[in-house]
Amino acid sequence: MKAIELQNPGGIGHLRMAERPMPEPGRQEMIIKVKATALNYRDVEIARGNYHTAFPLPLVPLSDGAGEVVAVGPEVSRFKVGDRVCGTFWQRWVGGSFAMAEPSYQRGGPIDGLLSEFARLDEQAAVLAPVHLSDVEAATLPCAGVTAWHALFTEGHLKPGETVLSLGTGGVSLFAVQFAAAAGARVIVTSSSDAKLERAKQLGADDGVNYRDIPDWSSAVLELTDGRGADHIIEVGGPQSFAQSLKAAARGAQINVIGYLGGSEGAINPLDIFRRQVRARGIPVGSRESFEAMNRALAVNRLGPAIDRVFPWTEAAAAFHHLEHGSPFGKVVLDHMR
Amino acid sequence: MKAIELQNPGGIGHLRMAERPMPEPGRQEMIIKVKATALNYRDVEIARGNYHTAFPLPLVPLSDGAGEVVAVGPEVSRFKVGDRVCGTFWQRWVGGSFAMAEPSYQRGGPIDGLLSEFARLDEQAAVLAPVHLSDVEAATLPCAGVTAWHALFTEGHLKPGETVLSLGTGGVSLFAVQFAAAAGARVIVTSSSDAKLERAKQLGADDGVNYRDIPDWSSAVLELTDGRGADHIIEVGGPQSFAQSLKAAARGAQINVIGYLGGSEGAINPLDIFRRQVRARGIPVGSRESFEAMNRALAVNRLGPAIDRVFPWTEAAAAFHHLEHGSPFGKVVLDHMR
Amino acid sequence: MKAIELQNPGGIGHLRMAERPMPEPGRQEMIIKVKATALNYRDVEIARGNYHTAFPLPLVPLSDGAGEVVAVGPEVSRFKVGDRVCGTFWQRWVGGSFAMAEPSYQRGGPIDGLLSEFARLDEQAAVLAPVHLSDVEAATLPCAGVTAWHALFTEGHLKPGETVLSLGTGGVSLFAVQFAAAAGARVIVTSSSDAKLERAKQLGADDGVNYRDIPDWSSAVLELTDGRGADHIIEVGGPQSFAQSLKAAARGAQINVIGYLGGSEGAINPLDIFRRQVRARGIPVGSRESFEAMNRALAVNRLGPAIDRVFPWTEAAAAFHHLEHGSPFGKVVLDHMR
Amino acid sequence: MKAIELQNPGGIGHLRMAERPMPEPGRQEMIIKVKATALNYRDVEIARGNYHTAFPLPLVPLSDGAGEVVAVGPEVSRFKVGDRVCGTFWQRWVGGSFAMAEPSYQRGGPIDGLLSEFARLDEQAAVLAPVHLSDVEAATLPCAGVTAWHALFTEGHLKPGETVLSLGTGGVSLFAVQFAAAAGARVIVTSSSDAKLERAKQLGADDGVNYRDIPDWSSAVLELTDGRGADHIIEVGGPQSFAQSLKAAARGAQINVIGYLGGSEGAINPLDIFRRQVRARGIPVGSRESFEAMNRALAVNRLGPAIDRVFPWTEAAAAFHHLEHGSPFGKVVLDHMR
Repeated sequence: MKAIELQNPGGIGHLRMAERPMPEPGRQEMIIKVKATALNYRDVEIARGNYHTAFPLPLVPLSDGAGEVVAVGPEVSRFKVGDRVCGTFWQRWVGGSFAMAEPSYQRGGPIDGLLSEFARLDEQAAVLAPVHLSDVEAATLPCAGVTAWHALFTEGHLKPGETVLSLGTGGVSLFAVQFAAAAGARVIVTSSSDAKLERAKQLGADDGVNYRDIPDWSSAVLELTDGRGADHIIEVGGPQSFAQSLKAAARGAQINVIGYLGGSEGAINPLDIFRRQVRARGIPVGSRESFEAMNRALAVNRLGPAIDRVFPWTEAAAAFHHLEHGSPFGKVVLDHMR
Repeated sequence: MKAIELQNPGGIGHLRMAERPMPEPGRQEMIIKVKATALNYRDVEIARGNYHTAFPLPLVPLSDGAGEVVAVGPEVSRFKVGDRVCGTFWQRWVGGSFAMAEPSYQRGGPIDGLLSEFARLDEQAAVLAPVHLSDVEAATLPCAGVTAWHALFTEGHLKPGETVLSLGTGGVSLFAVQFAAAAGARVIVTSSSDAKLERAKQLGADDGVNYRDIPDWSSAVLELTDGRGADHIIEVGGPQSFAQSLKAAARGAQINVIGYLGGSEGAINPLDIFRRQVRARGIPVGSRESFEAMNRALAVNRLGPAIDRVFPWTEAAAAFHHLEHGSPFGKVVLDHMR
Repeated sequence: MKAIELQNPGGIGHLRMAERPMPEPGRQEMIIKVKATALNYRDVEIARGNYHTAFPLPLVPLSDGAGEVVAVGPEVSRFKVGDRVCGTFWQRWVGGSFAMAEPSYQRGGPIDGLLSEFARLDEQAAVLAPVHLSDVEAATLPCAGVTAWHALFTEGHLKPGETVLSLGTGGVSLFAVQFAAAAGARVIVTSSSDAKLERAKQLGADDGVNYRDIPDWSSAVLELTDGRGADHIIEVGGPQSFAQSLKAAARGAQINVIGYLGGSEGAINPLDIFRRQVRARGIPVGSRESFEAMNRALAVNRLGPAIDRVFPWTEAAAAFHHLEHGSPFGKVVLDHMR
Repeated sequence: MKAIELQNPGGIGHLRMAERPMPEPGRQEMIIKVKATALNYRDVEIARGNYHTAFPLPLVPLSDGAGEVVAVGPEVSRFKVGDRVCGTFWQRWVGGSFAMAEPSYQRGGPIDGLLSEFARLDEQAAVLAPVHLSDVEAATLPCAGVTAWHALFTEGHLKPGETVLSLGTGGVSLFAVQFAAAAGARVIVTSSSDAKLERAKQLGADDGVNYRDIPDWSSAVLELTDGRGADHIIEVGGPQSFAQSLKAAARGAQINVIGYLGGSEGAINPLDIFRRQVRARGIPVGSRESFEAMNRALAVNRLGPAIDRVFPWTEAAAAFHHLEHGSPFGKVVLDHMR
């Protein structure tokens, strides 16, 4: 079968189509025909060699994808041939606290990802794809969707009427907008683009703040909330952004530290966490339990992902380039059927 | 000022208009001009003399109401003259676990209720009325609304995509329908009337089950949920209903035991709680913290109560009679301005 | 290898030593040399044919045991040959809510138990045995210990200073006594024997109530707690006992419904759950995450199980008989090295 | 009556004994004869004029104290004359989330503190003093004790077997040592003094790390925990210390940011919160509900505070000086009966 491999460190130019043996399912494993995959910034960093960990190469990239079960090994009980499934990011994290997520069992590195024709999945590391979503849509869920869910619901216990501040219009942030709106929260989104703010409102945001126009955007958030601040913040911007988030936070707010799209340089005084009485926490991708809970919410509320662009999977390098430089609104997806 | 008093035990016929001295605000107290009050079954039981506790008479009934602050005593900081407020049921329960709700501080008995022209409120026992609601609407919130909120969110941590089963179409049950729908849950409601099921759907229910047509209504709930059952049950029906709720419950479900509209006779084997691995819990009216959280949700989602009928407050006895015998859909309210 | 099989339904007399092929480890599996196993009432019920589910026979009984890893299959990363491990009851429940515990993956039925010389374990379904415990001691943990832990900590969030009422002196109840005492709680235990009450006090109980002397034992609990009642109740007695537990419960108390040693006949009015504002919930054995957390607590507090009697494993039938009729104080264990 | 007032900003030298009118109890208030008061760093900062808020002067300092009820006003139901009580720090925070703590209702500034012969207390802002503690001991509880409790139990849900790292030997840190040990946790404490480490071990700490000898003390914590790190950290040291705490934290750990005894200068990269997947949160003094829960734990476990030194209340300035410069081990208390 065909697979695209990262063969050398140091960049997207090192992605190469390769021939690999057809995988065989072991005990409690299944083989899926991959239908679509989706990109996350982690994948770009791994390809660039900037990720905090270096993985053995060659590596098949991409943790996120959806496919159809074409074979099952011994002792498989959760799925059958013909089922349409999504893989999970953490191969071992069924549920419970993050301490149960075994760090070396991450798909897309060190474990081979799904950028291939077929893939081998442990049945514990997959969920049924939501029936109302296409393969391309379902492929976007495992990291971006489950991270937003984990932050707002598994960890955040979001209630209707609370205010969610979602920074930017990347994958996690837009899922957070949709989930928060579906959960009856008030949603504020930030972007450097008025056009993107408008699109975010169509996904459910109540208000938008253009941080290019208003660099001190925390003041705009405080104004929109009558001085109360946001109860939940999806913080993907990095240290500079975090300093603003601290000011935009309500007393007791949850600041979910997820990424650093705005850069990783900068610093805060940790006493501000004390002074403003907030909770700042690192948010990983969630467990399979979170994934299954999210899928029920997607089905009940007929939600689907915001997709920026779909590439044929053979043009993976172009997709990587687009995620890195194209300033996408939502997810960048690879269609394995084209 | 005028007030309606329950002067003798034993029934609604003992409600009498009386003249009382104008109340004076003490430290941290305020006087409100009562604009509207709302009835709960507890009020009927107290009037009938059927409530589990007997209160000293004469008693001004009704825990629920809304009004305008017309005077404040010393050391009041939460409100000012002109504010529009709702009283709380528990006069001392600011927040935290139910152990903090001092049982003798319940409005409408033993503490005088709001069925009067003016009333004296501790500023800790009031919240701002939602600005988008009329006085008549705001009056319905303190017991029915806050009980539904307490069950689903404060205690239940309801997440989008979960299934809520709300029994009947009384005040608590219809608030639960609206809150659950706003929170992105799937909502199933039961009634003996197809017409009421239709109206419940207009409030947000996804499905209705007529328990007159289907006495074994738990099977209908299981069918609607592909055998999974409901995650949260608003159980207001009493022992007979509880036995059905146990069958309709998903593994790990929350059965919120709130009332006994279907009668108080009957029994279950408590081992069924073990066998079905559910959580059954008594749900009281919630704290002021729950009330404030609910009000934010009402405002963000532009929700208002289902009101069956509004009576002039001078016709309180007719309103009591209607709640007891009129099979209302939603709340029965008294307008103090008529 | 040798194994003891339940070959026909209907009683302990149908346990037979049999010869079985030596197990081979599949992917993510390992083989353990069983060193000790322990009995639970579930095992007696399965042997008697009284369990609510009938399993295919022949079946190797006993979910609980400890052993040494003697071989590992492909892709095993959590353990290595020579490790000393305990098996878990739920083969698939790594962590999270009970919905993640796949019901058909219970050891000791339908999955073969550990009453054999060797056994095959998924590496996800095992934990390291605490180093300070002997094999015989470690064998007692998987059901009784993890159930008590799940009730008090995973579900109950027990805090120091709360009152725990543990009914009887069976395995779960005595683990609950020890855990609650180690956690700084006040512990009350019940028994029909003053001698057993004394032994329970040596394990950490502060007070004992002899329910033979005081059939209305809830009044004794209320007296011991100045009328406040118990915050957590380990309810293993069945319906008759549950009615007393309701009276002995503090407002907001957790009643953990675990078993029915006192019989399964009887009934309660579920409205009492409302009237006393308690939480009654079915408590299963907990997840692997709970097991691991418990083991850390055992190690830090140097706790070990109360063991009533140890039999050679070849005398399994005698051990079953002793658990059923011998009124043991604590666990009944089988030593596989004798 | 006599009271000690802070009459001018800018230091301890501005504390002056003054004559004030005897307080009268209003509605739901009581008068206590103050028996003892205790100091916190907040009091030193207020006296120095370094606190982040400036309060109107003259101000009676000290939020913490214990006394006897000598008079009650109208509508008091929680206490009676002769009761021995502690005041609470937050006059309005009965329970629930920190959003319910009205910021302007802090005793010791802006509300007059207890450094006086008599004081006026709202009955909602007091708890019964534990009967097993002396007045001097009970006076130490309101801030230091309730902060440690709030961090570990109300917010932290500490379980037996978890590891608590408590930095330093001030009031909050030593209460945390005692509470954690009573709760069955493993406790590691840091200090610059081996003698203090020894005394902390007598209070329940399992291990001590001298951060003067080992400036990179996080490595010592990792070594003591086999690389796992601490699950709960009482972080009172400020930014420099926080950077070490991040390294000493287990995955998913709670870092409770409480103070800045080691200085307020310094910075961290907030992405480390993400990278190490920890939760950092500001911890205030807890609610009255936390105080009452703590008192039950103190009683059951017969715990009392570590007291460094007791001064006559007329020598308050010396006590302030000792807290600031004397490097005390535990609390500095003023005896109002001397």
